[in-house]
Amino acid sequence: MTLRHVVLLRFRLETDAAQRAGVESAFVALGAQIDEVQSLEWGLDCSPEGLARGFTHCFSLGFADAGDRDAYLVHPTHQAFSAMARPHLAEVLVLDYQAIAQPGFPPRRGPRVLRSSHPTTTGDES
Amino acid sequence: MTLRHVVLLRFRLETDAAQRAGVESAFVALGAQIDEVQSLEWGLDCSPEGLARGFTHCFSLGFADAGDRDAYLVHPTHQAFSAMARPHLAEVLVLDYQAIAQPGFPPRRGPRVLRSSHPTTTGDES
Repeated sequence: MTLRHVVLLRFRLETDAAQRAGVESAFVALGAQIDEVQSLEWGLDCSPEGLARGFTHCFSLGFADAGDRDAYLVHPTHQAFSAMARPHLAEVLVLDYQAIAQPGFPPRRGPRVLRSSHPTTTGDES
Repeated sequence: MTLRHVVLLRFRLETDAAQRAGVESAFVALGAQIDEVQSLEWGLDCSPEGLARGFTHCFSLGFADAGDRDAYLVHPTHQAFSAMARPHLAEVLVLDYQAIAQPGFPPRRGPRVLRSSHPTTTGDES
């Protein structure tokens, strides 16, 4: 089971594009610099719902367990990153969870091209 | 590339445990009821950082693309779920992003038990 560490960022209005890019790349670099990080993905908000509360960035890091997450939080490289990023950030939201993947995901179905096909169980009892 | 749909929930104080469980299971059921949902995982906040802004639940759904996310949003089953859940929710935050997975993730390393071991390529060319 993966412990997921979700970080939402809202930058200060004063933060320019270069500073923003610096924070983004430094955050991404943590994945290569800190052994405990098992996965890292991120992206910019593209929701049409208007419920992002001003947050524009989401980073999602995977850890084996809470112990590895804890090691990451106090890691000097992470702390240096936080100190570098903080002046550029208006708001940070962090929520971690033990990822409960639902049975059948993935995959519930085959490739998308098969979505509309009917089950063909006849003659296939295996 | 996966479009990630991240939903954070904060329940009303008046919502009891049974109602909360009802919303959780109905949300999870959407994954089996709506074809466009490619993956669904969720969990309860366990961050020690105190930056979750009162949100207690995170659901993360994966879609092939924004079109599938859009189809999900307007799907009658999703809309019925939203109407059912809304009275129990104090706050909802939604942020979607095109997941930019970092090169080398996963995996940068082998299983954790092998973290300290040295590569043993000799004699294994297959």
